[in-house]
Order: sequence, then structure tokens, then C-alpha cells
Amino acid sequence: MTIKGYTFPLTPDGRAGIVPPPPWHYSADFTLIEYRTNPDNVIALLPPELTPADDPGAVAVLFADWQSCTDDLHELHDPAQSQYKEMLIVVGCKYQGQPASRCVYIWVDKDFAMYRGYIQGFPKKLGEIHMTRSFAVGKCAVPIQAGSKFGATCSANGRAIARGVVTLRQPSPTGPTVNNPPMYNSRHFPAYNGLTPDVFELVRAQSYDRSATEIWEGDAEFKFYPDTLEDLQAIAPIEMIKGYRFSFAYSVNGGPVIAQHQK
Amino acid sequence: MTIKGYTFPLTPDGRAGIVPPPPWHYSADFTLIEYRTNPDNVIALLPPELTPADDPGAVAVLFADWQSCTDDLHELHDPAQSQYKEMLIVVGCKYQGQPASRCVYIWVDKDFAMYRGYIQGFPKKLGEIHMTRSFAVGKCAVPIQAGSKFGATCSANGRAIARGVVTLRQPSPTGPTVNNPPMYNSRHFPAYNGLTPDVFELVRAQSYDRSATEIWEGDAEFKFYPDTLEDLQAIAPIEMIKGYRFSFAYSVNGGPVIAQHQK
Amino acid sequence: MTIKGYTFPLTPDGRAGIVPPPPWHYSADFTLIEYRTNPDNVIALLPPELTPADDPGAVAVLFADWQSCTDDLHELHDPAQSQYKEMLIVVGCKYQGQPASRCVYIWVDKDFAMYRGYIQGFPKKLGEIHMTRSFAVGKCAVPIQAGSKFGATCSANGRAIARGVVTLRQPSPTGPTVNNPPMYNSRHFPAYNGLTPDVFELVRAQSYDRSATEIWEGDAEFKFYPDTLEDLQAIAPIEMIKGYRFSFAYSVNGGPVIAQHQK
Amino acid sequence: MTIKGYTFPLTPDGRAGIVPPPPWHYSADFTLIEYRTNPDNVIALLPPELTPADDPGAVAVLFADWQSCTDDLHELHDPAQSQYKEMLIVVGCKYQGQPASRCVYIWVDKDFAMYRGYIQGFPKKLGEIHMTRSFAVGKCAVPIQAGSKFGATCSANGRAIARGVVTLRQPSPTGPTVNNPPMYNSRHFPAYNGLTPDVFELVRAQSYDRSATEIWEGDAEFKFYPDTLEDLQAIAPIEMIKGYRFSFAYSVNGGPVIAQHQK
Repeated sequence: MTIKGYTFPLTPDGRAGIVPPPPWHYSADFTLIEYRTNPDNVIALLPPELTPADDPGAVAVLFADWQSCTDDLHELHDPAQSQYKEMLIVVGCKYQGQPASRCVYIWVDKDFAMYRGYIQGFPKKLGEIHMTRSFAVGKCAVPIQAGSKFGATCSANGRAIARGVVTLRQPSPTGPTVNNPPMYNSRHFPAYNGLTPDVFELVRAQSYDRSATEIWEGDAEFKFYPDTLEDLQAIAPIEMIKGYRFSFAYSVNGGPVIAQHQK
Repeated sequence: MTIKGYTFPLTPDGRAGIVPPPPWHYSADFTLIEYRTNPDNVIALLPPELTPADDPGAVAVLFADWQSCTDDLHELHDPAQSQYKEMLIVVGCKYQGQPASRCVYIWVDKDFAMYRGYIQGFPKKLGEIHMTRSFAVGKCAVPIQAGSKFGATCSANGRAIARGVVTLRQPSPTGPTVNNPPMYNSRHFPAYNGLTPDVFELVRAQSYDRSATEIWEGDAEFKFYPDTLEDLQAIAPIEMIKGYRFSFAYSVNGGPVIAQHQK
Repeated sequence: MTIKGYTFPLTPDGRAGIVPPPPWHYSADFTLIEYRTNPDNVIALLPPELTPADDPGAVAVLFADWQSCTDDLHELHDPAQSQYKEMLIVVGCKYQGQPASRCVYIWVDKDFAMYRGYIQGFPKKLGEIHMTRSFAVGKCAVPIQAGSKFGATCSANGRAIARGVVTLRQPSPTGPTVNNPPMYNSRHFPAYNGLTPDVFELVRAQSYDRSATEIWEGDAEFKFYPDTLEDLQAIAPIEMIKGYRFSFAYSVNGGPVIAQHQK
Repeated sequence: MTIKGYTFPLTPDGRAGIVPPPPWHYSADFTLIEYRTNPDNVIALLPPELTPADDPGAVAVLFADWQSCTDDLHELHDPAQSQYKEMLIVVGCKYQGQPASRCVYIWVDKDFAMYRGYIQGFPKKLGEIHMTRSFAVGKCAVPIQAGSKFGATCSANGRAIARGVVTLRQPSPTGPTVNNPPMYNSRHFPAYNGLTPDVFELVRAQSYDRSATEIWEGDAEFKFYPDTLEDLQAIAPIEMIKGYRFSFAYSVNGGPVIAQHQK
């Protein structure tokens, strides 16, 4: 007998792991904001394998309110194990001439989701995310209809990071575009010694059993706050594109490793 | 000019108050669990003005996931100002021979909701509440249908307090019953000196513009954890009644003061 | 038998109360920053019973890292019941021609400390406070000596509120001055109906068994962040005075009610 | 130009990384509890490279209250970047016949400390830790002297995990023993696909510039709570050994990789 597990802490029965083995299933509500910033500063966030998008300054900020589980669904009725919120900043790019996307920053409010993100190449930090929700009844229901306003904020370790509001106008003929192409993230894990990582590889996100509600779109406001640890002012909005609201679900079970980055 | 406000901190323009003036509007999702405990221990939690219910050991535990606002709705798109979760423990009783209810313990995760509760006689402490939610699509959607399981937990200051699960079976012909009669809470505020409170009065909760979805019911599990600061084992479940799931909305703007308690 | 308690929730044995009865004992480390702002905006925060200080624009920001208990000390070895941090904003003023002070804003990170503050007239909201500490050994010890830097931050509900740093220079011949005179706070509790409070009285803080370490002083930086719910820009620093670092302890058991405010 | 950084998120200037490059410097206060449990369940937590200790059921629980920084010390005056608390469970073992130790479970309250732990082979999850502290003055000072009680608790995601109390008796002639030998942890990082990790190696912890205060010892109480996600009841105390209180500091900059585990 020895210790085992898909993730640590490794134990005799493997059940203590911070993340259970895939497949992982996800359902979420999204408030998504698209804007344009200085293209140079988006391009500066790409690894050499990825090239600028046709609209190189376009950025998507995704606020997501998740419920997730594994095949036996047991996490769903222990909500501390299944729910989390996050804010992702996604930029457009190209891989081998084809439209692509990449998550350049992301904050999340639970440890299991943070580590599950590491496995998939999402550079997650811990944060606190708030998002307006729709309820079934009442003056505070914020239904999915023209004029409804969906706000969202992100903070981390006592620092305000971002705030946005989407005011719905109509069903969206196109849906969001920046984050739509295949996403290429970088898995990265430092060595025990020195600055050269043990793992540093470009991967493509892959999912299945995707489903979504109708997408609504509207006007968007968004800003980053000063004094963040990351240089978010470099990618601050210059021109707003649109905001969106929808629900989305998918499942994940690994995907292709595209390239080993030069270490 | 002087400082003003419905609640502190009082300022020249009054806008800094921890709670804005009523009316207050609320929408929520509820996971509600009913059980029977030792009737003596329920009766021991009643003030002299309230007498035992016909089913004197019946207890309702309400997990509620709220979005609330004032008349101009501005809190709705600043979700840190509008959202909160709470767990209430409500017992049955009678006032002047008529069925009544009373909130004997309650935990909530935001300060504005805590203080707004004080104004209404809810004895709120700060806690962390998790509740399974329904989403629109996907394997993790947990739809409102037979077999869906809704879990809920409450903790406070590093202590686990309670855990419950409701497994839906069918639409409920009756809805929950323990918390249904008018609620009689006690507003209480200590004096600056000594043990005799400045405010100690029995009030009846009053609401309007009430609306609700269809109520589903099913089997329920529930337990309190050991080592809580409150003697919750005294009202631990002896016999489960039922669980419920529904959405509910109402508005509040004061109500009748029924009696001054003997101080 | 009936329900009882110094504070709610009222129960047969009274032990569940959010705050146990006084006396209350406190020990703390303080990082304190004094600055001058627009005097008009300080004066605008005073009730009619209090008049401007001789240095009417002086403000003290106190970051405090507390451990507190009641007479039997039991809270001390259950640290979730004894520890909390807070940021207070204190302004100078006069009462009947004598130097006085007043807490105009305050954020704290635990519910028991929040409610205990309400009893004493502190207008507490929930926040997250971080403060540099001194440790006994090591490169990260930040000892109390010239050149050591003590930083402090406060945030609330995802909003950054304030950030300051004190760089120690020497033992302080005078200690801080703004918060030194007797403190006059206002106890306030709304009625169940309407906008006229049930409790609104001016009280003087009173303590005993006071002890303190040597006080160190030095240079200070401080700023409020934008987008707070309170108009803190109105009292933003125009000129820094000094910063201080010291430890302090006292006990509290009520005090004089000075006046009933006009409601 | 390309993106860079010791850790993600990788950016043009590398400054956004969740953990800055070593060396890392640490100062802390420790409350440490030693007990004996079923030796079989300790041995079951060891990888094949490590063999049972001479006292094979001995366990040390370390509650640590940290302040940490890099060479330029800038984190120290931005305390959200330098402070964190954690609870480690350390067991005794042997490596190549020599006394060794290993961290089998650990909870921490900040993301940077969590990830810095991953780099060093600590299997960290997010938790909330409370620890009694010593202050300089007052009734709540809890000085380092006979009779003082230091409590500590750990919870995670709304689950209570552990609670302990150490009552000081005298300076310790030996200091703690279970965690004293060199620590052998396992660095582990899953692959993008499948259950075989990309990184799985045994490393030895290495530190320098170590300093400590006098160590006090005394009686200890400790328990794990029910319903944790990990099987902590398997290593619950059967016999208490001792408790300790001290402050400790060191620096870390990598260390030896001992072996590649069989994947």
C-alpha cells in the first residue's frame, strides 16, 4: 500500500485531494464585457507561439458564477465543494494563423477551483467576486430583459481590482467574440531550485457537452482600480464594445498539449 | 447643518448609513427544512407574551439566498450592497391564542443585512452560508424536479453550525407550515450602563407585495454540529418533517410594535 | 423561567448573546496616523453638542489589532472570540469648551466587536484590516526601532478604503494628540417604524486600568481610495502630521450619558 | 520581448507573479502540539521512500502565524502580501535510516503562501486559522509564562477541522521533537491529461539564517472535528504528549531533490 491521489494531499485512499480526477462538469451564469485597449499591451501578454488577433486590442472580461461537480455529482449537494465565482481577463490572438484566445489574468474565490485551474493553465489568484443575479420573483429579480442592469466587481486581498455594469438591450445576434475562439493557456510549475520551471507548456482548452441559454447583449461600463499588484492599467478600456449575459455549461477532460514553451 | 442619517455613521448628507431607510425590497431562493425536537426546549426560547404552538416541538430552518434593494434599485447593480445569505431558525408559538412564529437564531454574511435585521428584531450573528443553486443548463444545473438534492451549510467564526439536504419529491400541496404564521420577534438594544436594555419590545413582522414560485417539497436531513457557542443541541432534530425549495419576494416598511417586554 | 441575556439571541441561560456583559478588557497594538484635512469637512461631522477643536482640521486614523475578553478570560484561548482588527477615524472637537474627540467612521472584522461597538456608540461597519506586526526574531521581525515601516490597509465588501505607512524615527515625546482627549460618541438605534430613532444619545467613553508601552513616532503616508460608499475624500489628507506605533490596554464598563440628541 | 516571471501570471515585466522568486524570509509565532495516534495510520501516509519513525505514532500539529518577505522587504509594509496563518500536520519517519519528518496535511489563509508551499511540496488547502497571541500590556496580554493558555483553531470552507489549547508550564529543556528532523515533502503537479502527474518528486526542506526565541512547553489538548473532507479521525490523538510556544525565523532558497517518486 502507498499513498495516492490525483492531486495532493496524497493519502491511502486518495480521497483527500484538493481536486478530484476529471471529467469535471460545469454550469454557470456569465456577465461578460468586451472592450478595446492599447493593442501593444495585449500583444505584450502573448507567448511567442501566439500572434496578434485581427482586432488586436480587443479584451473580454468574464465574470462567472459557477457550480461544478464530478461524475457522481456529490459536490452539488455540498455547495462549499461545488460553487465558486471568478473574473477572467481574456485576450484575442492567433495560433498558426487561426483565431485563438488566451486567459491572461484570473481571480477565483475557492481553493479547489484555483488548483483545478492550475492544471488547465489558468493563472489563478484568490479574489472576491460579486455579480448581480436574476431571481424568479420580486422587485429585486433583475430579469433577463431590456433595461436590466448586471453589475460585477472583483477584489483581492483588500485591493479593489475591477468593476463593470452591463445594461441589457436585446438578444444578441452574434454573442461575444473575443473569447469565442479556442483558448491557448500555459501550464507552468516552478522547479524546486532556480528560476527555470519544471512544467511550461502551451495547451489548448477542450470541452464537450456544451449547452447555453439565449445570449443577451447591451451596453457596458468597465474599469480597473489603481494600486493593483498587476499592471492592469496597461490594458484599461479605451473604447467599450458590448456587454453580454447568458448561462453556459460544459464538461472538461484534458486536451491537447500544443507545444513546450522555451524555458 | 448637522449630521443625519437613518442609521450611523451619521454624516452631513446621510448617505453613509449602514442601512438606507425603508421600504426594503427582497427576492430570494429558499431551502427550508422542518423537523421536531424536544418541545420543552422550544418553549424555553419563547418570551412570556408567546405561548406554545399546537405542535410545540416543530422547528423550521430556513436557508435563504437574498438580493435586496431600496426604491431606486441602485443596490442591484452593485451586488456587494444587495446580496447576502442567511440561516434562520424559526419556531412555532401562539400570540393571544393565534398561531405565530419566532426567529430564535440567525446567521448572515453581510453587515448591512445584519443591522437591518437588528432593526426588525432578528438576533443576527455573522456566519458563512452555502446553498446549492439551480442553474439554467448543464449537468450541474440541479433543476427543480423530483430527485434533485439541495444542500446547505452554515458556519460562524470557524465553527461548523449546521448542515442539511433536501431531496425534492413533488410540488407541495401545503408549503411549509412552521414559519407561515405571523412572526413575533424582539427588538433589543442594551443601555450604555448596566444590564437593563434601552430597547426591548415585541414586534410583529409585516410585509407586502409578496410573490412566490411554486413550492416543491421532499425528504430532509439536518444536523447541528457540536461545540457551537449557542446550545443548539437542545433543539436538535428528533424527527424530520419535510424539506422545501422555492423562491419568494416581499417588501418591508415597518410594522406594529406589540408590547414592551419587561426589562 | 424566561429568556434572558445581556444581548440577543436571548435564551434560557443567556449564554448565546453576541456580546457578554461588561466589564470588557482589551489589549492591542496600534498604528496611528495623524493628518490635517479641510476643517469645514471635519466640523460638518460633529453633532451640535460638539464644537470645533483648536486645530479643527486634524484627523487621527487608528489601525488597531485587538485581543479582548471578559473577567473569566475564557475568550483568550478561543481566539475567534477574542481577536479582531479595526480602522477608526477620529476627529478633534470640544465639549463645553474642553478638548474632546469623536469617532466618525470605523470598520472592524468580527461581529462581536461590531456589536460591542454599537453599545458604546461606535458606528461600525464590517471590513478587512491588515497591519504590519513586530515579531520576536528574523529578517521579517520589523522591530520597534528607527527605520522600521508599519503598513496598514482597510477594505470593505470588495472596496479598498484606505492605506497608510508609518516609518518610525524615535520615541515620541508627546504621543498622539488628536484622539487623546475624552471621546464623545453617539449611540443610535432606529425605531421599528419611521425615521426617528429610538435611541440617540451622546455618551462619553470611559475606561480604567489603562497601560501602554513606550510610544514611537515617525513619518506617515496615508490615502483614501476612490469609490467608497462614504464620502471619505471630504476628509482626505492635505498635510500629514505624524505616525505612531505603540501597544495599549484598558478596561471598559459603561460610562456617562452626556445628552439626549435632538431626534 | 516575451512574457516572463518566476510564477504565473506571466507578463512583460514579470511582476504580477503570485509568488516572487526566492530567497524567501520568514518570521513566525508557533503554537505546537504533539500527540500519539495509531502508528499504522501514520505509516500509511508515508511514501515508499520513507520508513516508520522510532516513535511511529507521534504527530505534531503546528499552528503558525507568519510574516514573510523577499530580499527587498517590500512585502512587510504591505501586510496583505506578507502575513498568513497556517496549520500543518507533521509526522515522524526515517529516510535511509535517519530521523526525518513529513508534512501530511496543511491549511493556509492566503494564496501566495499556498502557492509558495506547492513549490516546496506542502499539500496546502485554503483554511481559516485562529491563534491566541501575546500582547505587550494588559489583562488580555497572555504573556509567555506558566499558566498562560494558547488556543488555536482551523476550519476550511465552513467545516471545523481542529481545535487545540496549550497551557504553558516552563521553559522546555528539549523543544518539540516530531518536526525537528529534516522534512521530506513531495512536490506534485498533475499532467494536462490523465492521472499520471508531470511532477512527483521527493524533496528535502532546507533553510538558513535560523533563529528562535526560548521555547516554552506545557500541557496540550487537541481534537479533530467530524465531517472533514480528509480522514483526520484516522490520526486522531490517542495520547497527548506536550504543547509548545515559541517564535522562529528562517530563510529558504530551494533545496535538494532526493528522488523521483514512481508515478
